[in-house]
Amino acid sequence: MEKSKIAEELRPFFNPKAVAIIGATDKKGKVGNVIFENFKMNKERGIFKGNIYPVNPKLDEIEGYRCYHNVKEVPDDADLAVISIPAKFVPATMRDIAEKGIKAVVIITGGFGELGEEGKRMEREIYEIAKANGIRVIGPNCVGVYVPDTGVDTVFLPENKMDRPKSGPIAFVTQSGAFAAAMLDWAAGAGIGIGKMVSYGNKLDVDDADLMDYFIHDDEIRVVTFYIEGVNEGRKFIEAAKRITAVKPVIALKSGRTEYGAKAASSHTGSLAGADRIYDAVFKQTGIIRAEDFEHMFDIAKAFAKCELPKGDRIGIITDGGGAGVMASDAVAKFGLKMAELSEETIKYLKENFPPHAVAGNPTDVVGDTDAQRYKVAIEAFINDPNVDAIVIITLFQVPLLDEMELIDILADYAKKSNKPIVAVAMGGKKTEHYAKILEDKGVPVYPTPERGVRAMAGLVQYAKYLENLSFLPICWGEGK
Amino acid sequence: MEKSKIAEELRPFFNPKAVAIIGATDKKGKVGNVIFENFKMNKERGIFKGNIYPVNPKLDEIEGYRCYHNVKEVPDDADLAVISIPAKFVPATMRDIAEKGIKAVVIITGGFGELGEEGKRMEREIYEIAKANGIRVIGPNCVGVYVPDTGVDTVFLPENKMDRPKSGPIAFVTQSGAFAAAMLDWAAGAGIGIGKMVSYGNKLDVDDADLMDYFIHDDEIRVVTFYIEGVNEGRKFIEAAKRITAVKPVIALKSGRTEYGAKAASSHTGSLAGADRIYDAVFKQTGIIRAEDFEHMFDIAKAFAKCELPKGDRIGIITDGGGAGVMASDAVAKFGLKMAELSEETIKYLKENFPPHAVAGNPTDVVGDTDAQRYKVAIEAFINDPNVDAIVIITLFQVPLLDEMELIDILADYAKKSNKPIVAVAMGGKKTEHYAKILEDKGVPVYPTPERGVRAMAGLVQYAKYLENLSFLPICWGEGK
Repeated sequence: MEKSKIAEELRPFFNPKAVAIIGATDKKGKVGNVIFENFKMNKERGIFKGNIYPVNPKLDEIEGYRCYHNVKEVPDDADLAVISIPAKFVPATMRDIAEKGIKAVVIITGGFGELGEEGKRMEREIYEIAKANGIRVIGPNCVGVYVPDTGVDTVFLPENKMDRPKSGPIAFVTQSGAFAAAMLDWAAGAGIGIGKMVSYGNKLDVDDADLMDYFIHDDEIRVVTFYIEGVNEGRKFIEAAKRITAVKPVIALKSGRTEYGAKAASSHTGSLAGADRIYDAVFKQTGIIRAEDFEHMFDIAKAFAKCELPKGDRIGIITDGGGAGVMASDAVAKFGLKMAELSEETIKYLKENFPPHAVAGNPTDVVGDTDAQRYKVAIEAFINDPNVDAIVIITLFQVPLLDEMELIDILADYAKKSNKPIVAVAMGGKKTEHYAKILEDKGVPVYPTPERGVRAMAGLVQYAKYLENLSFLPICWGEGK
Repeated sequence: MEKSKIAEELRPFFNPKAVAIIGATDKKGKVGNVIFENFKMNKERGIFKGNIYPVNPKLDEIEGYRCYHNVKEVPDDADLAVISIPAKFVPATMRDIAEKGIKAVVIITGGFGELGEEGKRMEREIYEIAKANGIRVIGPNCVGVYVPDTGVDTVFLPENKMDRPKSGPIAFVTQSGAFAAAMLDWAAGAGIGIGKMVSYGNKLDVDDADLMDYFIHDDEIRVVTFYIEGVNEGRKFIEAAKRITAVKPVIALKSGRTEYGAKAASSHTGSLAGADRIYDAVFKQTGIIRAEDFEHMFDIAKAFAKCELPKGDRIGIITDGGGAGVMASDAVAKFGLKMAELSEETIKYLKENFPPHAVAGNPTDVVGDTDAQRYKVAIEAFINDPNVDAIVIITLFQVPLLDEMELIDILADYAKKSNKPIVAVAMGGKKTEHYAKILEDKGVPVYPTPERGVRAMAGLVQYAKYLENLSFLPICWGEGK
């Protein structure tokens, strides 16, 4: 699909001129109330810039906002409708929406295809109305859309139940609604910025492929993450995946990998999980990075959000704890990377500038009596060494002579000016978390174990290799249409 | 080794009558000062009950404590010496200690065997003095011992650098000193209780096998965790491991698994890492559970600390988020467990007591509009079902109608009265962390992902199976002497 078409079709979901909230109510805690409050609050905060039109046949006014009895009555600037009314009323409402001319609809309501024949019939009816009128639909049975920059927030969990993450260059797409909520909450706590979240539930219309096509052209988004239980239209998915991964990285967490998981998935979203090895093959072919679990997914996403891509797979490790260096070395082997063989100049430079008990090598161990300047010596040497493609820096902040803020500034400075990716590993408790957050805000991704730091780096390497192979292929390849 | 001997030999390390701190100083931040301050502070807090005797030839007094010029001058109740003086002075000091009659020594000082021939010569000299005089030595080149209940704390990082964990039934033994510090700090932040920590560095004398023999009889300790880079005396290790695992679980994190890791380990502690598959075989044979990384190690340890052992490997899953249930089901397969097949009575009971859109099955999905009582129905049914051996309960606290504290009380109550192990999984941010901590304090281990929760349960199952097989073996087996 060409840029202008998909971008314009999905634009109202992420940045509407005005939103009609169908099922808005003043009853606290109800879905239609939480969604209305989200938009209202974001408007008061100056984040949501559009107009808000609550729709409810029984109310004339909600908290100072005029309430319309039917969506057909709302002013003409409404370009997004959010529906949270019982399933049986949705088809008729879709007809009203069609008549009104709104082309983007989020159906929060559950109780459709996942619950038997009558639900499936209604879904088909909704789908036909949408198709006949050029309406794009997210849902039903979903949490919808969250965009911190524009104030779109259909997540029907109030802020006292779920924290909202700050904005950032990661897009997150998920089939599962509860998982969406748990993940947003987790991302908020972990300080991970989410630029756009879409929970599409039964994906009656807008699906993974559409969203990949949209995110290709979305300059706010650097990396796209998917939680998938099953893909319906394989060919469409593959072609869209090839298009986007040529431009930006995509990470997928596909559950239902095993027989047990597939069985659970089929009773959850009715997805046919399919043989897992097919997904493995598809992900490999299309350059999608497959995550083992959600920590893995966001560990990699964080690296993509902050790091340059490496030119190769030769990893240099700097540590102030020997044991952590051993663990990182194990992880380098485990994830199929190589330990960089430092150049003679590097070894010589390190030996000249280190005290005798520090270890010049790979790993380079600045040892437990290090200060920040000894780290600086090592980082500079690794960055200048042509045999090193990427650097993992383990900072046990507990060591006694280390000025934490001095080290953080050194790391952030080199990460900024070097074109080699740098990730940090910091193991510890509250103080470490505090320093890790500062370091991340300055642009260096930080991981709680050597294993997770190296694994994230392996994601960067995997994608860099995919792109490299891509550039050797005939030009026609990868266009997919 | 018989109980009375090892228990009495190592007792002074963990609960000394009085400690001589050799190298104590009033210079802030120095190792000998931090260790002295640790004991002094713990004495002021009423935790350390013994006497404290600083030893330093240049000082007559340190912060109100009389300072002795030689360890030979300290009063006769001293049964533990902690040494933090330069390596070259240690052999002579060891002779003084021998003359004084102190039988337990922690040598913090580094710069011995890990740094060449002269160091190795000194280590041999120290070893010979120790052997000739019946002195047990922890170290050198180590962080030493931390026992929150008795106030022994030789960790030379002040509290503004490293938090101390609360007491608990987990023992933690590590070769690596920096790792010890990072782990204690991490455990403190994660709310994990550590009853005894030993960092033995170059393990000149006291080693893993001695500590296993000690912990067999230590009623404060329910589970023992090891970070190992290499084992020197294989036979001794295997026999001690068999003895302790017949009584309580042992989890080992062995790094240097790969060629890269083994190389890094040899330049770290000089350990010969050995072929990793030999360690795999030894751990399997001796019933030691092998951890993949430190998160894995403490995830399992936490489960052992709080849970009963399961009678089998049939897992029941209860969730309020379908996606998380799918992930947990995948993990059950991945870690070699079985999904329990619920009895007909259970299914019937759940269907009778659930609204129609909740899913009675395994996983049982109480779905996103659940309250705490619906969880109670499910938990009770799973506990009563003879086909279920162990229960993983996923609680996405974000769902709108769930009273978090009500659910926590229900979970804690059933975990207490049931003899099936119950672990919880809670994904989310700050609020979730808050509730998870409360739930853990009430005795239910909580994990941040379905995968990690199931993986911890797999550790319980693995150990339970080991014990079961053990009971079928001839009685002479496993005694090892």
